[in-house]
Amino acid sequence: MDMTMRDERVAVPAAAGGYEIHLAEGALARLPGILASTCGAARCALVTDETVAALHADRAAGAMRAAGLDVRIIAFPPGERNKTRETWAAVTDAMLAAGLGRDAAVVALGGGVVGDLAGFVAATYMRGVPVVQVPTTLLAMIDASIGGKTGVDTPAGKNLVGAFHPPRAVVADPALLATLPAEHLRAGLAEAVKHGAIADAAYLQWIGANGAALAAASTGALLELVRRSIEIKAGFVARDEHERGPRKLLNFGHTIGHAVETLSGYRLLHGEAVAIGMVAEAALGERLGVTERGSASAVAALLQGLGLPVAAGEFDARSVVEATRADKKARGGQVEYALIRRMGEGGVAPERWSIAVRDADAVASLDALRGDGAPC
Amino acid sequence: MDMTMRDERVAVPAAAGGYEIHLAEGALARLPGILASTCGAARCALVTDETVAALHADRAAGAMRAAGLDVRIIAFPPGERNKTRETWAAVTDAMLAAGLGRDAAVVALGGGVVGDLAGFVAATYMRGVPVVQVPTTLLAMIDASIGGKTGVDTPAGKNLVGAFHPPRAVVADPALLATLPAEHLRAGLAEAVKHGAIADAAYLQWIGANGAALAAASTGALLELVRRSIEIKAGFVARDEHERGPRKLLNFGHTIGHAVETLSGYRLLHGEAVAIGMVAEAALGERLGVTERGSASAVAALLQGLGLPVAAGEFDARSVVEATRADKKARGGQVEYALIRRMGEGGVAPERWSIAVRDADAVASLDALRGDGAPC
Repeated sequence: MDMTMRDERVAVPAAAGGYEIHLAEGALARLPGILASTCGAARCALVTDETVAALHADRAAGAMRAAGLDVRIIAFPPGERNKTRETWAAVTDAMLAAGLGRDAAVVALGGGVVGDLAGFVAATYMRGVPVVQVPTTLLAMIDASIGGKTGVDTPAGKNLVGAFHPPRAVVADPALLATLPAEHLRAGLAEAVKHGAIADAAYLQWIGANGAALAAASTGALLELVRRSIEIKAGFVARDEHERGPRKLLNFGHTIGHAVETLSGYRLLHGEAVAIGMVAEAALGERLGVTERGSASAVAALLQGLGLPVAAGEFDARSVVEATRADKKARGGQVEYALIRRMGEGGVAPERWSIAVRDADAVASLDALRGDGAPC
Repeated sequence: MDMTMRDERVAVPAAAGGYEIHLAEGALARLPGILASTCGAARCALVTDETVAALHADRAAGAMRAAGLDVRIIAFPPGERNKTRETWAAVTDAMLAAGLGRDAAVVALGGGVVGDLAGFVAATYMRGVPVVQVPTTLLAMIDASIGGKTGVDTPAGKNLVGAFHPPRAVVADPALLATLPAEHLRAGLAEAVKHGAIADAAYLQWIGANGAALAAASTGALLELVRRSIEIKAGFVARDEHERGPRKLLNFGHTIGHAVETLSGYRLLHGEAVAIGMVAEAALGERLGVTERGSASAVAALLQGLGLPVAAGEFDARSVVEATRADKKARGGQVEYALIRRMGEGGVAPERWSIAVRDADAVASLDALRGDGAPC
């Protein structure tokens, strides 16, 4: 199968103007044309982290310069630890020092951290300049780069400061995944499992059947996974851009996931933390009578087969639940969880996407997971 | 005239949902009801500065608590000098420490600095929570609180970081102006003159004829001025929320105004700087053949009659023009100016709201103002 000739586009509607996800092997080469047609900016900040800069920035900037664009590369130290207000201010100041005006655009080249941070810089630079997302990790390509969520962490928790700022375009080039370390590839698969768990049982089965090919970064299997996950993610965003309803389902695994990610001091990758979170939240759903029995075991088995961690056991249950309280999803004092009803179907009841959970139930569920020889 | 019975509402459409400006003597008492009907939040952060906190916060918070709201007062040191990313982060952290979630709302109680900063906190808190603007200065009441512009300054210039975040409501209570120092009242009149200069020659004449009553803070004259200015400002916002066209006219006086405000180290009040900026930009417009001859002298005479400064002479022309380059309005290397064609009519030509100006022209215009015995 010759991937280089394929060019698929997925349209995402948005209140501030819809955008397209360009999915193709080699799509990076089309970035200058996409920038010209969607942003019309003559000057760009190429925001990235130092790891990605060494791998891809020169090529991306070279293509943009060859098309006549004035490009400034701004790289910050990699990792969730640096997704802070301080880095946001430093990138902003670098753009100001470069004399970039309201007519400039931002290109976010990197993983979820870069996309979130560069997107927030674009959202707030002179009250908003366009951003084009160019994800370089599987996680960013299938999830974080789509939907306009941007933001940074504070010492109190993840993504507590941010904005909805839809990109003008997403350039999804699976060829960029060739340089991705294996653990980052696996972490990205966790979000694909999430997409299946909330929306598509057949997709879950396909992931399970193709686990070996995916873990080996087979081009064909990865392209199929990227395509299907982008469709699912874009579908939720199209239905509910500002997460007032069904888009909440994409938070499955993320309430406990964010908590253990923070508690690990960001030693856990986001996708690893989400894997742990999905198992724990499936078990919580079973306890609450929301989720079909056996779902936690099933999702744990699938994730383990992909080489992902599933045990929250190293974290104290009360500390985890305490950390969930810093989450944005705390409403009126109780923490909201987006759960699944069964594998392939998200929600807590028809047209109900999340449920307020008492701390005691969350603690008991985490304790039970540890104590009874269940998946964790 | 018994003001207490009047309650006027001006509707402002906005892409994210329109809102109303509630204009009435004593409107502050209606804040709890307005919050309930527009935000539905049970918990609020009342964000203000220390000066306003001492004057009005207890009364505002008391009314809200009496209505069953959980209110946290967060006050920061007053002045443009504190409209920074650091203050934004500190207010955000205070809200996080108070356990406020995505279901909370922000009430911005204060002048333009408070409105801009608290609005930006609301725009970015957990990707956006509602804000209700309660302006306590004339400038904020007739201009800054309306239209959704929020943001903070950086060392490089004013309002370089921010977001469009329309309020859920604006509560304009002229009774709050009774505590406003005289120089702040005068500074606010500069924005009213701007409204007249860009849109309403008859209003300019009315301001000129009522200068003494306005400077003496006559309730009747002030209420009339607030009403007419709100109508003009809201009209521009309604036509062009995101400042892609006619809303640019509201920047008349603000390019040079922001520059001298920054160069003064914020010794000049914003309205004072805008007064200087309007005279300088009218003179620039005359030099460029855009603005009718005599407009600079006329606007200077009107502003001087209101006790406002009009001379940019203490600032070096090259330094002023250099400072304008940090402005958001720099596009493609040249600085954009929103000018007037004559007193009462903004724009540079039919359906053209701003013009790119070469630095040399701006410098020459400022030098000429100083040299030829003209108003500056």
